[in-house]
Amino acid sequence: MASRPIFVVAGVGNASGTGGASARVFSNAGYRVALIARGSDNLKKLAGELTAAGGDAVAFPVANYSYQEVQTVFGAIRKHWPDGEIRAALWNAAHGTWKPFLDITEEEVDESLEINVKSAFAFSREAILSFKDLSLNDNGKRGTLIFTGATASARGNTTTSVFAAGKFGLRALSQSLAKEFGKQNIHVTHAIIDGAIATDRQKERRDPEWFANADVRLDPESIAKSYLYLAGQDRSAWTWELDLRPAHEKW
Amino acid sequence: MASRPIFVVAGVGNASGTGGASARVFSNAGYRVALIARGSDNLKKLAGELTAAGGDAVAFPVANYSYQEVQTVFGAIRKHWPDGEIRAALWNAAHGTWKPFLDITEEEVDESLEINVKSAFAFSREAILSFKDLSLNDNGKRGTLIFTGATASARGNTTTSVFAAGKFGLRALSQSLAKEFGKQNIHVTHAIIDGAIATDRQKERRDPEWFANADVRLDPESIAKSYLYLAGQDRSAWTWELDLRPAHEKW
Amino acid sequence: MASRPIFVVAGVGNASGTGGASARVFSNAGYRVALIARGSDNLKKLAGELTAAGGDAVAFPVANYSYQEVQTVFGAIRKHWPDGEIRAALWNAAHGTWKPFLDITEEEVDESLEINVKSAFAFSREAILSFKDLSLNDNGKRGTLIFTGATASARGNTTTSVFAAGKFGLRALSQSLAKEFGKQNIHVTHAIIDGAIATDRQKERRDPEWFANADVRLDPESIAKSYLYLAGQDRSAWTWELDLRPAHEKW
Amino acid sequence: MASRPIFVVAGVGNASGTGGASARVFSNAGYRVALIARGSDNLKKLAGELTAAGGDAVAFPVANYSYQEVQTVFGAIRKHWPDGEIRAALWNAAHGTWKPFLDITEEEVDESLEINVKSAFAFSREAILSFKDLSLNDNGKRGTLIFTGATASARGNTTTSVFAAGKFGLRALSQSLAKEFGKQNIHVTHAIIDGAIATDRQKERRDPEWFANADVRLDPESIAKSYLYLAGQDRSAWTWELDLRPAHEKW
Repeated sequence: MASRPIFVVAGVGNASGTGGASARVFSNAGYRVALIARGSDNLKKLAGELTAAGGDAVAFPVANYSYQEVQTVFGAIRKHWPDGEIRAALWNAAHGTWKPFLDITEEEVDESLEINVKSAFAFSREAILSFKDLSLNDNGKRGTLIFTGATASARGNTTTSVFAAGKFGLRALSQSLAKEFGKQNIHVTHAIIDGAIATDRQKERRDPEWFANADVRLDPESIAKSYLYLAGQDRSAWTWELDLRPAHEKW
Repeated sequence: MASRPIFVVAGVGNASGTGGASARVFSNAGYRVALIARGSDNLKKLAGELTAAGGDAVAFPVANYSYQEVQTVFGAIRKHWPDGEIRAALWNAAHGTWKPFLDITEEEVDESLEINVKSAFAFSREAILSFKDLSLNDNGKRGTLIFTGATASARGNTTTSVFAAGKFGLRALSQSLAKEFGKQNIHVTHAIIDGAIATDRQKERRDPEWFANADVRLDPESIAKSYLYLAGQDRSAWTWELDLRPAHEKW
Repeated sequence: MASRPIFVVAGVGNASGTGGASARVFSNAGYRVALIARGSDNLKKLAGELTAAGGDAVAFPVANYSYQEVQTVFGAIRKHWPDGEIRAALWNAAHGTWKPFLDITEEEVDESLEINVKSAFAFSREAILSFKDLSLNDNGKRGTLIFTGATASARGNTTTSVFAAGKFGLRALSQSLAKEFGKQNIHVTHAIIDGAIATDRQKERRDPEWFANADVRLDPESIAKSYLYLAGQDRSAWTWELDLRPAHEKW
Repeated sequence: MASRPIFVVAGVGNASGTGGASARVFSNAGYRVALIARGSDNLKKLAGELTAAGGDAVAFPVANYSYQEVQTVFGAIRKHWPDGEIRAALWNAAHGTWKPFLDITEEEVDESLEINVKSAFAFSREAILSFKDLSLNDNGKRGTLIFTGATASARGNTTTSVFAAGKFGLRALSQSLAKEFGKQNIHVTHAIIDGAIATDRQKERRDPEWFANADVRLDPESIAKSYLYLAGQDRSAWTWELDLRPAHEKW
């Protein structure tokens, strides 16, 4: 019998958002989970939580998302589960800056391109190298690579120049990979999250009524369920891109 | 306890394609199924098959998809299940014509606009009228209206003028409705089917190797599962549009 | 020496908008102009105005834009200028209805599809038949077919279901034709007019300050100049689609 | 009387492509031209050619397109024409790499993001700072910032991951700037060049028949004329994006 597949998630943050919810949802669905984020406290706590609930989750903190660091962490993941197969990977890290264009510094352009695009290239490379020699699973796939997009992935706006440049770039990467690796039964998919997510940070910033109202903000768990659904699509009918937004969102 | 919800599917054809598969998948998931198509033989056979499998499915053949006929058939559905709630509806009827532009007749333009667009307006009207006074279900929705799109929904091409005009029009309808009725917790969604579907008709026309190869054509059941997934999305994170294509499709 | 080329414009309305401005701009640029609209008074007045200014313009009023009527009017145009070559054609007729979906009647759906899509098929057919046997002009083209689009051509919204269905359909037609007839050196182009146009009707409805402010509304003459520019693009680098909007438009 | 406006073009290369042609077309139209490229030989030759033809063109070679270097070169341009007004700017530099994803090196990702995106931020910053305090010109504009895009600006493909990531990013920048600075009467526009351009490099690589055939490749001069047209659009109806392709291009 095949061992439990591994799900690698990068961009877990403080575990209250999409990355954390995805870890929980994939863990509940039977995946082993490799948790990647910058900063290790929340990561270890989440690993403990998932393990206590019967899962098998391990924290892999990184100093940054450089090519070197990403390569190292995938090596560590493979070493930790030597018999394991990485079958799903989620790139959820992002660098969001909303500013009038003339206030954006050179450093902010660097950071946005570094995190939103270059690091995603590094992560994609390791994910695809992990998938490409695996046999087809029951869904006819070698693996699923998921990208978290945003409104700014497909629409520039007045204060989004630097964030949209990064997110458009990520979308381009995901579409190019979807076309290049579909032929090798590797599924690449991109979700446009078109609205605010009910994370801890939003909880602090917004009024409680907003936070409690499922009509107006995205539940991280609902996003995570979409990702699990995408990972479960079979090779005859899979999705490159879908949008996700709350019922009452104006768009 | 709430009675089983009703799923209305229009465009069942000979039951070997997306409409038929959707009927089976929603029936298995606990929906009562109202089957609509032009022509009654295959429809009754499918109703019988679903009922024999423990479902509750009824054939509602129509002469055409005129406003009058669509209104009548929804009346018949409500009468058949007087305690029932229509919670999901799929518009799967289409009129496909691929021809050099100068060979297209006035009648073909009429037919394409009639089936691909106008009838979809009639069907949408009845679906939304069915949903709008229902209470919210467990997912925070009154109902889900699903449209089957095609490659030609978002991309005109050399022999697609009349088909694309219809399918672009349908996509416009779906996006407009998604924005107008999201605020009322009615979920409207559109699937771009970007490839050939493994239907009986394709089975006759293509070689058996192609038909058997899940990498190159869409399985109707896989499409249907996507539709069930969309119907099950909750209000905090639902999808207007996704694409579905086989792993090896060139796009 | 080649005789002056003919420009056919359908949808001149009361001559205060895009159709009328296009007639003036093409006439000034040396085209003979065939003016088509429903209703003949304004049409004759405009023909007189253009002729007085040294042009050669003729009114061709139609009862409607049916296939039969459109075929007849192109026949009349060819008969009027027996030595003439139709080198440019503009489809500017439209049927705009903005309404909540449930208030839209079957008749309004019919009208929108009839004017926005079916009539455009009829007009395109005659335009392409007029172009296809001409020799290449100095720009390497047989002719240019221009379509006037709108915000609703590429974006559905809360009260646009019936208008967007028509305008999306028109856009599909234009893209399909552009791809099919590019190979025959026929240029098909589509302009997305993304804002309100300074027409007589707007003049009545809006305050004078708005009407006078070139930052917030489109000048019909500016649109017309874009159309003349498109007609003048050469075969090595021509445009299918451009957007046009006022400087201060929010989009 | 206003002095002749200045056109700044970055990415002139060997002067045989879009950048060089734009310099010629804008010079003929009465603009002073500031020529920017990496490498000075061709640049000086072109400046000499334009000046000999009655223009006023100066070569401003750069070592690279870093923030520092771009800022310095704009300073030098302003110093050279102390009474001049920069009214148009073209970002035409690009870094094209088409490779299977797994063959792409970290350095190539860096280079693509550096040239295609980050340098464009630097250039845009200087262009907008140059425009923002100018008075409105006869077209109601302070200045026009033009970006050269490509097929890969809006469509990822099998070997385009790194190039598309850059060009999508540039498109995002252009759309964000168009929305942010439209309100200040600064016109930002983006041209999708969808086909091969008849440059010296293509001349060497392709057969002479292809090069001579205006139906299959873009003439740099035709692209340049489009840019001049865009710079001349008035504030009531200007374009963010247009596509340009040869008549026989398959798309």
